[in-house]
Amino acid sequence: MDATSGVRMATGNGENSYAVNSRLQEKAILETWPVLRKAVEEVYTSLSTRWSTIVVADLGCSSGPNTLRFVTEVIGAIRAYTQKSEEHARGVEVQFFLNDLPGNDFNLVFRSLEHFEGIAGRKEAPPHYVAGLPGSYYGKLFPRQSVHLFHSSYSLMWRSKVPPELSTCTHLNEGNIYIGNTTPPTVIKLFQEQFRKDFELFLILRSRELVSGGRMLLTFLGRKSEEMLMHGEVSSMLELVAKSLQHLVQKGRVEKKKLDSFNLPYYAPSMKEVNTLIKKNGLFNVEQIKLFESNWDPQDDLDGDVVLDSASSGKNVAQCIRAVLEPLIVDHFGQDIIDELFMVFAATIAKHLEKAKAKYPIIMVSLKKAMPLNY
Amino acid sequence: MDATSGVRMATGNGENSYAVNSRLQEKAILETWPVLRKAVEEVYTSLSTRWSTIVVADLGCSSGPNTLRFVTEVIGAIRAYTQKSEEHARGVEVQFFLNDLPGNDFNLVFRSLEHFEGIAGRKEAPPHYVAGLPGSYYGKLFPRQSVHLFHSSYSLMWRSKVPPELSTCTHLNEGNIYIGNTTPPTVIKLFQEQFRKDFELFLILRSRELVSGGRMLLTFLGRKSEEMLMHGEVSSMLELVAKSLQHLVQKGRVEKKKLDSFNLPYYAPSMKEVNTLIKKNGLFNVEQIKLFESNWDPQDDLDGDVVLDSASSGKNVAQCIRAVLEPLIVDHFGQDIIDELFMVFAATIAKHLEKAKAKYPIIMVSLKKAMPLNY
Repeated sequence: MDATSGVRMATGNGENSYAVNSRLQEKAILETWPVLRKAVEEVYTSLSTRWSTIVVADLGCSSGPNTLRFVTEVIGAIRAYTQKSEEHARGVEVQFFLNDLPGNDFNLVFRSLEHFEGIAGRKEAPPHYVAGLPGSYYGKLFPRQSVHLFHSSYSLMWRSKVPPELSTCTHLNEGNIYIGNTTPPTVIKLFQEQFRKDFELFLILRSRELVSGGRMLLTFLGRKSEEMLMHGEVSSMLELVAKSLQHLVQKGRVEKKKLDSFNLPYYAPSMKEVNTLIKKNGLFNVEQIKLFESNWDPQDDLDGDVVLDSASSGKNVAQCIRAVLEPLIVDHFGQDIIDELFMVFAATIAKHLEKAKAKYPIIMVSLKKAMPLNY
Repeated sequence: MDATSGVRMATGNGENSYAVNSRLQEKAILETWPVLRKAVEEVYTSLSTRWSTIVVADLGCSSGPNTLRFVTEVIGAIRAYTQKSEEHARGVEVQFFLNDLPGNDFNLVFRSLEHFEGIAGRKEAPPHYVAGLPGSYYGKLFPRQSVHLFHSSYSLMWRSKVPPELSTCTHLNEGNIYIGNTTPPTVIKLFQEQFRKDFELFLILRSRELVSGGRMLLTFLGRKSEEMLMHGEVSSMLELVAKSLQHLVQKGRVEKKKLDSFNLPYYAPSMKEVNTLIKKNGLFNVEQIKLFESNWDPQDDLDGDVVLDSASSGKNVAQCIRAVLEPLIVDHFGQDIIDELFMVFAATIAKHLEKAKAKYPIIMVSLKKAMPLNY
């Protein structure tokens, strides 16, 4: 895989970029702040010496306003805690690592740091340092026992790769791009198996890299039940992307075999799947696990089940999903179809939302390293 | 100062980029390898425990082939040492931080890491991790006592800023861009004072960030004597850039006051100046200090004093200097004059080299942190 390929959000800060279309991700982050604050406080109090350094890593940081909000929030949590406990003389410093694949727009993140320092660099803030760390979190990222807190938001539903069998037998998941209505059970198993392998590897790697008692806070798209295609779940949204692509196939704009051979490196697990894997793996204790929901339309802040303007919501969802999927779709189908595809998709979504409002289920799990490793 | 302004090399990897025009810097690096290897070995042997991590930082890493050559060399030094001493079972890991200003092309560096891993990721290599760290090394970059080895090559002759008095009284150094023949002694003092402040600050900051016994290897352009404008020295090269700009002023292509108000944030010190500052500062012991020379023409690998083809050498020097100065010149004078300026400069250099071959003096100093800080 080329360094610039792989899962990455649309770069830059133009209209269709991820940077200006990451409101959905922002909402998930706000939902997790209280849990994050608690984890930060616990890490802080567990530091035994004066002049200690807390090392914090954000995995799948992407490049946009949310990237540095996480940094701000951790600094704010420490500042609030030290003020509350009158411990601010302890001289703790915080070292951040923002991680994503090498194709991520790190230049954009780094160039926004200076403006950011104007906000975060207040007197009472602990000294802090922000580094970028390119690489896949399905590989080693840090030396042994060198990190206190891992965070990952809206990223772990991405797999390390499309299940290899799907990449070689390109007709196995005909007409679908993920788990759709016509996806055979054997293919569902392939997606699940890829998730199991990836997630177990992730836990082993991070456990090795965390200090004793280190914390991990993970938020990612999941499922409400063991069922695969319930209304609102990400699979049903991706089913509509597939339908939009099928529409372009019918119009002769996309080759059928091009669509058949396209599958997303993705899997949204259920709470039960996540829990089972963590327990079986044994390297972490679950401090908290919960599921919350977020409207498909990132501009819709209402809690109810009414969609006020489905056409407008359709456009909002399409813009938001485009920022996430555009690079992968362009890599496979080329640049030409992209505007048309997302116009069709916006209309398809609008129609879908007329039936009922749709909300993504999001899993948040707070973990603590189970015990020091002996190896 | 905007994050993308300040001293930075020409981005990308096109014909005039720094990435393809950094052969001169490569030569300096090769000259320092033996000293670097020794420093790495000493850091390695001073680690007291198994499973330790060596933290290494390259300050002013820029983005080009030299950026990762440094990483390769450190890894190679550790591999060679562990093989020699049969200590490879000790499980040391190496964490690299590549530092430069936020305007540096970190994306280019990160995207070349993957290809690099094919070379450096051999079996016998210690596990290693490469992060990017945006920020000025005239500010805090790391938590206290968290770094084992600092390295900086071809960067510390750049000042944190143009001396403030020169920025406000823009006529003080009329017709010059650095220390030239007509630069008044008071202005020379301003450049020297800026160097003193910057270098002392640099030593204080790095001493705080180094572990006890930590090492620092610095290579930068300097002077052979206390004289300012000896043949071959960088000041005499920059004098020729000023002359080329004066030529454009005479042709009406550049406003005179534009030239008068342009000064480089630069100072090439003598060995004596460097030594005096380090001793007075007291935070480091000098393990080794030496001066070596490097031909102006990066393509000229001959040791003698003969310039075989001064026209061709003129072009080579111009291309090399353009990759370094272009961003600063464009910021001040605009894009329009840049091609013409460096054509004039190439001819001026060619004429200059007809008199005698010119070589830059380069200072290399290897330092060891004097004692643990108590504060």
